[in-house]
Amino acid sequence: MCPSKVAQGDERGWIVPIGGAENKNGDPRILARFVALAGGPRAEILVIPTASQLRDAGSRYAQLFGELGAQRVEVVDFQTRHDGHDPERLARIERASAIFFTGGNQLRLSSVLGGTPAAQLIRARNAAGITVGGSSAGAAILSEHMIAYGGEGACPRADSVHLAPGLGLTNRFLIDQHFRQRDRLGRLLAALAYNPFAVGIGLDEDTAAFIGPDNTLEVEGSGSVTVVDAGDLGFSSMADAGGRDPVCMLGLTLHVLIAGATFDLATRTASPGALLAERT
Amino acid sequence: MCPSKVAQGDERGWIVPIGGAENKNGDPRILARFVALAGGPRAEILVIPTASQLRDAGSRYAQLFGELGAQRVEVVDFQTRHDGHDPERLARIERASAIFFTGGNQLRLSSVLGGTPAAQLIRARNAAGITVGGSSAGAAILSEHMIAYGGEGACPRADSVHLAPGLGLTNRFLIDQHFRQRDRLGRLLAALAYNPFAVGIGLDEDTAAFIGPDNTLEVEGSGSVTVVDAGDLGFSSMADAGGRDPVCMLGLTLHVLIAGATFDLATRTASPGALLAERT
Repeated sequence: MCPSKVAQGDERGWIVPIGGAENKNGDPRILARFVALAGGPRAEILVIPTASQLRDAGSRYAQLFGELGAQRVEVVDFQTRHDGHDPERLARIERASAIFFTGGNQLRLSSVLGGTPAAQLIRARNAAGITVGGSSAGAAILSEHMIAYGGEGACPRADSVHLAPGLGLTNRFLIDQHFRQRDRLGRLLAALAYNPFAVGIGLDEDTAAFIGPDNTLEVEGSGSVTVVDAGDLGFSSMADAGGRDPVCMLGLTLHVLIAGATFDLATRTASPGALLAERT
Repeated sequence: MCPSKVAQGDERGWIVPIGGAENKNGDPRILARFVALAGGPRAEILVIPTASQLRDAGSRYAQLFGELGAQRVEVVDFQTRHDGHDPERLARIERASAIFFTGGNQLRLSSVLGGTPAAQLIRARNAAGITVGGSSAGAAILSEHMIAYGGEGACPRADSVHLAPGLGLTNRFLIDQHFRQRDRLGRLLAALAYNPFAVGIGLDEDTAAFIGPDNTLEVEGSGSVTVVDAGDLGFSSMADAGGRDPVCMLGLTLHVLIAGATFDLATRTASPGALLAERT
């Protein structure tokens, strides 16, 4: 489930995790930007509502994307693992200019789609340039190491997070959502303590990280994105902790980004980005 | 933490997870085969005892590998994350013909080494052809998705396994150890239920999987290797299960391999291998 190889001359497509509960009516700037990346008036967006158990999860996004100017929106559900092999569904993935996963339960996405031709094709299409995004559970599924579920609170505890393999569009970020609203800093830190190789991004509701082909992310929306870089972590006590024990972590780097600010994974630097440009 | 790219003309080195408690005196066939893969009389083996809190964990293996004919064995511990940046230690990784991780706690390995230049270099060296193996915790760390800890029992339960990112030499196998001795089928199945893309291998004590450059594994040792292939999994109830709930999984393929038998990941087929050859 590692990212598909980007062919020479190609650029990977954008990866767009959204923290859930994004503004859908008054000021849908996140979804509008997603439609623009999908091709604007030429956008052909495939909505996958598999994470959800609500009947209208897909059709609601289909209507929104249509109102925001997409040329065509299709809703394709995967109810069984067999559906991940269905030629008709694969053909729809093949012709989409962008793919969007709704919220719900990320374990439904990984347990239904994981290891199927549909999952492979979505990775391949992202590597070939199309945009893939999702909200809440649809954001969690995008990375290689997915937070499946966990506890609340700001302090990392030994048992506060359950990871599962995700879709694997990126293996550089650990993604969490409803971040401030559900008090999830602790579980994101616990996941980083397991293995500090990745960068953690905690997405508030109505807030998205637009991760470009160059692995620079830019924030959009009304909340913040908390970036936790464990690259300089000097020490953690995770290996010695058990159960609800709090975990000691020394030397984390933290950035709180709002709309316009950026984080460059290659250099591991945060920048005010458009915030500074607006001021000058 | 995905596997390093294998350069054109190169072959990835062997990956050798051992289920723990391997025979060290009477009939050390697993360790002898490891030394042979490391170059036999030209072997320069680096032992990493970081998982263990026993003082002699490394020196014991050093003595054994020496007795089995290795030219040179060095023990290099990584006690802190700072050690993962130490040029002297990196130089030793650079010149080793094989690397061996002792048992202990796999979260110590991932939390100390994860994301450091040492972890990157070990992946790169394996991609360039050197053998990397380990026993127990040292086996768990080898894969991309590592079983950090979990419960006992044959039945998969929603909360029976905790995954963490491992060293990432392979992302095709999920590895578990002390398999029969600690009754771990359930937790391996639970990990596969999260996302059925990988193949699970459960290693009994004194039993190893020798995974070749072509991703065919061959079993060595006195116990068995249980291979669980979820590629044809038709259904799992993981997404709807919680806590200690048992998980329904339909359509798993199971192979129990003993010494000489093989499993080819490319074709997902098991073969009696040397067992059949011996008979004819």
